[in-house]
Amino acid sequence: MTAYDYDLFVIGGGSGGVRAGRVAASLGKRVAIAEEFRFGGTCVIRGCVPKKLYVYASQFSEHFEDAAGFGWTVGESKFDWKALVAAKEREVTRLEGLYRRGLENNGAEMIDSRAELVDTHTIRIVKTGKTVTADKIVIATGGTPNPHAALPGHELCISSNEAFDLPELPRSILIAGGGYIAVEFANIFHGLGVEVTLIYRGKEILSRFDHDMRQGLHKAMTEKGIRILLTDVIEEVTKTPAGGLQARTMCGETLNVDTVMLALGRDPNTKGLGLEAAGIGMDERGAILVDAYSRTNIENIYALGDVTDRVQLTPVAIHEAMCFIETAFKGKPTSPDHDLIATAVFSQPEIGTVGLSEEEAARKYAELEVYRAEFRPMKATLSGRTERMIMKLVVDAESRKVVGAHILGHDAGEMAQLLGISLKAGVTKDDFDRTMAVHPTAAEELVTMYNPTYRIRNGERV
Amino acid sequence: MTAYDYDLFVIGGGSGGVRAGRVAASLGKRVAIAEEFRFGGTCVIRGCVPKKLYVYASQFSEHFEDAAGFGWTVGESKFDWKALVAAKEREVTRLEGLYRRGLENNGAEMIDSRAELVDTHTIRIVKTGKTVTADKIVIATGGTPNPHAALPGHELCISSNEAFDLPELPRSILIAGGGYIAVEFANIFHGLGVEVTLIYRGKEILSRFDHDMRQGLHKAMTEKGIRILLTDVIEEVTKTPAGGLQARTMCGETLNVDTVMLALGRDPNTKGLGLEAAGIGMDERGAILVDAYSRTNIENIYALGDVTDRVQLTPVAIHEAMCFIETAFKGKPTSPDHDLIATAVFSQPEIGTVGLSEEEAARKYAELEVYRAEFRPMKATLSGRTERMIMKLVVDAESRKVVGAHILGHDAGEMAQLLGISLKAGVTKDDFDRTMAVHPTAAEELVTMYNPTYRIRNGERV
Repeated sequence: MTAYDYDLFVIGGGSGGVRAGRVAASLGKRVAIAEEFRFGGTCVIRGCVPKKLYVYASQFSEHFEDAAGFGWTVGESKFDWKALVAAKEREVTRLEGLYRRGLENNGAEMIDSRAELVDTHTIRIVKTGKTVTADKIVIATGGTPNPHAALPGHELCISSNEAFDLPELPRSILIAGGGYIAVEFANIFHGLGVEVTLIYRGKEILSRFDHDMRQGLHKAMTEKGIRILLTDVIEEVTKTPAGGLQARTMCGETLNVDTVMLALGRDPNTKGLGLEAAGIGMDERGAILVDAYSRTNIENIYALGDVTDRVQLTPVAIHEAMCFIETAFKGKPTSPDHDLIATAVFSQPEIGTVGLSEEEAARKYAELEVYRAEFRPMKATLSGRTERMIMKLVVDAESRKVVGAHILGHDAGEMAQLLGISLKAGVTKDDFDRTMAVHPTAAEELVTMYNPTYRIRNGERV
Repeated sequence: MTAYDYDLFVIGGGSGGVRAGRVAASLGKRVAIAEEFRFGGTCVIRGCVPKKLYVYASQFSEHFEDAAGFGWTVGESKFDWKALVAAKEREVTRLEGLYRRGLENNGAEMIDSRAELVDTHTIRIVKTGKTVTADKIVIATGGTPNPHAALPGHELCISSNEAFDLPELPRSILIAGGGYIAVEFANIFHGLGVEVTLIYRGKEILSRFDHDMRQGLHKAMTEKGIRILLTDVIEEVTKTPAGGLQARTMCGETLNVDTVMLALGRDPNTKGLGLEAAGIGMDERGAILVDAYSRTNIENIYALGDVTDRVQLTPVAIHEAMCFIETAFKGKPTSPDHDLIATAVFSQPEIGTVGLSEEEAARKYAELEVYRAEFRPMKATLSGRTERMIMKLVVDAESRKVVGAHILGHDAGEMAQLLGISLKAGVTKDDFDRTMAVHPTAAEELVTMYNPTYRIRNGERV
């Protein structure tokens, strides 16, 4: 083993790579980790973290409005985009520092350079041209926004990467996509005072989510003034003489906006990494193929996180990294568990969800009980906001197990996290029924829906 | 049975009484329900509901402050107490109407009068002097703030009843008590700009809660400018020539304030109800004694909710009412389940809790694992607020069961509701560990504390 420079070489300093590198180093392994951009990866640098900070920023306009119903008169407010970007940047830099320090304190060597495979045990450090060798290699290079190169004018558009650091806040934005990134940014920009249009090719935003969540969020977004175009796509983006952009859509709309953002999925970062040189197998989208232990077809090379296109979520990448450590360094082969992952969409209102949508459950179970509550949150009674909260439990009638839980409304993400524990533990609807309400909360609705709203038998609502 | 005027007579139109009356009427029983004040009871009229609305109102000042860190400049804000009281009153009146309509629609007769027992089957309607008879009687008259009649000047003080409807917002208030009502109002008034002092005879606020919650909230309240006096009590309240109040304390403090509020516990409403005439047993505090089925020592008379001083919570009263219906009208004797009730304190920050405190658990289990996380919530990184969030799991080392969960911070009440489901279902720490994090949330800390912070063996921290 000492024939190699390192016991472990990690390519990519995001959530999965840093965790794998840090923990391996803490076990006394000789570890190097290469990152070409900034340690922290998508999540910290241009994903979850800045996104959530911008969500907070964008919620203040509603706070100011809501205050009136509670007796407050608020003076005129102004928003300074550059101040937010700078504050975000300070926080992201602080977190990046924490990531670096964690690696440093455990003795992992950080290499601020792109790294590429030369063969199955050799890595070239692009910045210096030097090559090093390693016994085991982890590829955790993440993903990148799909640039939609086939779209005429795509080079005039931004992705979520640029959205965080726009030099000016646009007056208007057209966002293409119907996934969680498109939806989250639509709400962020709207809250910051931007005129927002969302365009999505599908019949409803957020495909694969429960239909109540999809429709409920669509309605809430439309009511607050976000325009949503469905079953339509941008066909061309051009510059206007005035310096703005013009987008022409398949259905014949012409939209003049300051900014066009493409949020059309993310591609695995596998180009130019020397994967072919090492003979690593990929799928047709360029994602690295791995087995149940995150191992590629090359025995000593593993891949973690978004680059494998299994589940593109930070905690999943971290979990895969921890399983990799067990497998590769502790002699305890451990498969990541991708079942029943709770997730949140930080739209406004939020979505929190775990388990199966009604549609998925209907295909899987002979009979379902669906419990559904839709109500005005308490705060809205005085603020006058029209927004409604939706809570939904999908229950397998035979076993009484709760197989899906879906929430639209404030704090849905926090709730999904805790519902995740219950569903993972396999609790039944009877466990929900036995639980005393906490009053007044929104979540109490989840334990006070005693009778099914409707049933689904053999896929049909009855 | 038809020898009586009613199948069921309910005294008290609060949460428990209304539920019992409404459901009995829906079963075709002849029901009357008497309420001397307003239907809805403490919870709706001068408890949970207006309290939570005032909490929302009092949070806006922090929203305005927090906005600056996110790039917002907010003009001067003004708060109009009378506008809040009026808005609260409209909402409370609306809810009262819903309660009345629910009774009406099910055919229960509402009597807007005090009612007193004459004997075990006879009730006098005080307003008309008329007497009526009933087969079964439910006493659900709730509780009332302890007036502390022994305190010189107590008649100059207010209770939570008056706090909601003060003609003017005081500039300063002294609140006596260390329970959840005292603590909630201290935070409400502080948020609305009032100078607040809390005085409590005990060594720390919120006795019986987990010590981390008690100390953490104390620290947060002090940091935001609420003064807390411990191991001290008010000895006398007098009027000052200027029209304010002066309170002299046991430890020798003299406080000049606009308002003194006493929040020193609540007494069961059992005076002058004719309970003696009917021969109903009470304890030394005046609470009605009941068996496991909420039945008094008189066979046809039941008591529900705060008047029995079991657990003074709205959902518990409602649950007791539902069990009463099963027992008395469906031939299915059902005991209310008072085990593992999650609760929230709507302080700022909130407390959410379910199960045993560390102290209680240490007395019950030979070995505990305590998992504890204290961190700055994400929003605070940009707002600059110093407030910290605390999360804590108390685990029986032998069974791995989570026997207590405690949260201090935003949305702790919502989280406690959902943790309540897990604890009620008897989940283990392994179930928590198996749950994937939802990122970025605060609640994810609850599923990522993999190693005990410390252990407690035979009552000693090790």
